[in-house]
Amino acid sequence: MAVEGSKYHTEIVNEKGLTGQTYVRGNEGLSLGVSSSLLNSPGANPEQFIGFALSTCFNATIGLVESQHGLKHDSIVHTGVDIVKDTEGYKFIVQAQIMFQELDNEKGQEMVDEALNQCPVAKLLKANENVTFKVVDKFDFS
Amino acid sequence: MAVEGSKYHTEIVNEKGLTGQTYVRGNEGLSLGVSSSLLNSPGANPEQFIGFALSTCFNATIGLVESQHGLKHDSIVHTGVDIVKDTEGYKFIVQAQIMFQELDNEKGQEMVDEALNQCPVAKLLKANENVTFKVVDKFDFS
Repeated sequence: MAVEGSKYHTEIVNEKGLTGQTYVRGNEGLSLGVSSSLLNSPGANPEQFIGFALSTCFNATIGLVESQHGLKHDSIVHTGVDIVKDTEGYKFIVQAQIMFQELDNEKGQEMVDEALNQCPVAKLLKANENVTFKVVDKFDFS
Repeated sequence: MAVEGSKYHTEIVNEKGLTGQTYVRGNEGLSLGVSSSLLNSPGANPEQFIGFALSTCFNATIGLVESQHGLKHDSIVHTGVDIVKDTEGYKFIVQAQIMFQELDNEKGQEMVDEALNQCPVAKLLKANENVTFKVVDKFDFS
């Protein structure tokens, strides 16, 4: 179905599951070798793709919010994605940690709160109980 | 925070928003140039990362469900991601289309229904009103 008001459309193709390549439709697009995180084989996995989406989009959105407040972009985002057993199959635990380099954490939290209402990837994920966003002094997933 | 029962952990870093590289922490990991879908510049964007995650994970899970039913893997998944204006900022519309090559669509829908309860990426996304899953005879986003 065509999407009304679409500013951009992309289409991502997978034919073989967690082997071979997943690629952007259209020959010039990105193509990436994929694999399962549970096997020791080369290739990117779905955990990493979720992390790429959230780290990139959320940090860009924080930068946008900061610019709306006359501030320079000051944040780094690390997204940790873990896979754990679920009642059925597996589930991902997604932890976005946001570090501000100069801004104090209280002001940083305000930027994060605004970004949560603007970032398209955060909008897709934030209602899920297994997705968290946290302002940190040091990145720590240990 | 360490995740109890984690079978695998990955950490994805973004420092500059939609310019430069987003990368897997640890020097040997994947690093990808990023850009905004709304600018005509090279690089992968968050829309594509969401599509890579969903197409790869969901098609792999369908293959797993099929094997649980003694069937061979028979599906191809195309995920369309569009960006549209939202009340605040933008939002993504995510459409996963699943084509079965030999299996009839009724049986295919049963595989999809089971996969929705097993696929980690589907679990993160499926409750969102802007994410849909549809068995199709032909891929069509027009």
